[in-house]
Amino acid sequence: MTAGEGPRGVSLKTSTPPTCGPDEIRVGVKASALNRADLLQTMGLYPAPKGVPADIPGLEYSGEVLELGARVTRWKKGDRVMGLVSGGAWAEQLVTHEREAIALPAGIDFTRGAAIPEAFITAWDALALQGKMTAGSQVLIHAVASGVGTAALQLCALHGARAIGTGRNANKLERVRAMGLPDTVLVTKEQSFGDRVKVLTSGRGVDLVLDLVGGDWLPETLECMAAQATLMLVGLVAGATADVPLRSVLGKRLTIIGTTLRARALEEKIAVARRFEQLVLPHFVTGRLQPIVDATAPFSEAPAALERLAANETFGKTVLTW
Amino acid sequence: MTAGEGPRGVSLKTSTPPTCGPDEIRVGVKASALNRADLLQTMGLYPAPKGVPADIPGLEYSGEVLELGARVTRWKKGDRVMGLVSGGAWAEQLVTHEREAIALPAGIDFTRGAAIPEAFITAWDALALQGKMTAGSQVLIHAVASGVGTAALQLCALHGARAIGTGRNANKLERVRAMGLPDTVLVTKEQSFGDRVKVLTSGRGVDLVLDLVGGDWLPETLECMAAQATLMLVGLVAGATADVPLRSVLGKRLTIIGTTLRARALEEKIAVARRFEQLVLPHFVTGRLQPIVDATAPFSEAPAALERLAANETFGKTVLTW
Repeated sequence: MTAGEGPRGVSLKTSTPPTCGPDEIRVGVKASALNRADLLQTMGLYPAPKGVPADIPGLEYSGEVLELGARVTRWKKGDRVMGLVSGGAWAEQLVTHEREAIALPAGIDFTRGAAIPEAFITAWDALALQGKMTAGSQVLIHAVASGVGTAALQLCALHGARAIGTGRNANKLERVRAMGLPDTVLVTKEQSFGDRVKVLTSGRGVDLVLDLVGGDWLPETLECMAAQATLMLVGLVAGATADVPLRSVLGKRLTIIGTTLRARALEEKIAVARRFEQLVLPHFVTGRLQPIVDATAPFSEAPAALERLAANETFGKTVLTW
Repeated sequence: MTAGEGPRGVSLKTSTPPTCGPDEIRVGVKASALNRADLLQTMGLYPAPKGVPADIPGLEYSGEVLELGARVTRWKKGDRVMGLVSGGAWAEQLVTHEREAIALPAGIDFTRGAAIPEAFITAWDALALQGKMTAGSQVLIHAVASGVGTAALQLCALHGARAIGTGRNANKLERVRAMGLPDTVLVTKEQSFGDRVKVLTSGRGVDLVLDLVGGDWLPETLECMAAQATLMLVGLVAGATADVPLRSVLGKRLTIIGTTLRARALEEKIAVARRFEQLVLPHFVTGRLQPIVDATAPFSEAPAALERLAANETFGKTVLTW
């Protein structure tokens, strides 16, 4: 699948299958999912990193192992896998380092599997590994109805942390509450979130923020953070600059950490995949964690699916299947 | 000494000596030093924290132990001490928790001792403890000719890190170079620092920033930081808000940490004082670290000394003595 100018420019095309190196596996892709980075890439705003197919979107996949590189030891042909890649997953085949792939547990089909990697690894890496979320942490999740947001609220529950979610769509927040999140804040033109978050935390503010929004939400976000709290900046839906109140950052000794998975070196991606497989994957088997699939569509309908994402009409993840 | 409106409002007054609690010592202050927080406090912009004399500036001291609380074990009368307090050091006497006081080494007189605590503990806590500076780190120090800046450049040398300093005064940068710092960048209206820092780091950018400036320097600072670098925000001389390029923060996975010593709880202040005494103080005895005393003045001349600080005419620390 090749990205042109904007979602409507995405189209199916024939291309040469990638070569499988000695430590790599070739995966027959069964499903992938939509990410905002795909949308940005099709709009020419988020070019693929070096060494990644420039014109094939797709950051995550589920599928079957088709071919093994000469030194591969972890997999055999036919194994069910899922994982993150830096691009190129909207294709019938992809290659990936054998240690970057994660076993797709029995009982999770390809469609649900494709909805796991980007949302859950992003949220878990930001909250648990970097943000040091622990039992009792009070966590603010902006855009809680998104793929990463719905993953984050489940991870908060798993870790014994308390989540407060924001969003601009009342229907989506209703669905989030149906998932067991009591504390949601509807953000409208008239009504912001800061005061409500302060009330919900008895005036103290939150310890940790998963910020998928950035932009002009940021000043208010910083104001409703507790002393020594951490903001994990993961997305910039509301804008790429912010007028930051530095006195709050300094006086409350706040930490702001920008994070992205895509730009990381291979060894970092492998490290997070291995820890995720060990620490988080078992909770999908028990059902405590659930991939949230909003809709599925065949790959040929990717343009329409991207338009829905651009219009903020999605809840959780949209999955593409062959 | 009591703070009125602005430096000119500071005047000597008689006040009741503070009461010495059971874990506290009464110190006969021999010297204190100027900090920008004192200046802000005299301007009504930085009120003292709760429990601290609201009208007596002074965040650091050297002096002699005059009185011991009933449970005090670390000191005897006449011991020479120095340390940080949250205010009230511009006085003939102060009380402080016995574990917050630091032994003033033999060979360092009261004047030089008063120039150590705020500058060196601030810089060391920010760079070494929080910023994880290590041998080989490339460190950008804004306002390098300040008290904290001249402490920071010595701490970089001590840790085997490479310092690059900025400033707006050519004469002060010349004095910094005379202290052994080869890499300084003069910032003028026509000439900023970002490009030069990039050249000095072979295009890579710095790993760590000690930022005493904030404000409109911040966007350019973020642009000349390496991937996964950390900015320690310690001061806001250039302004309390900044238009922050969030795409750089996210894409380079930068960390921004606000820090201040004054707002910390007693147990944190004690912890940092104890570690400083253990790890850093010995280097003042050997002479590898040197307090930088720009000028001394009697306490009665504090207003004129504050005016010089406000006009950015100081280099290193200005010490007040009785």
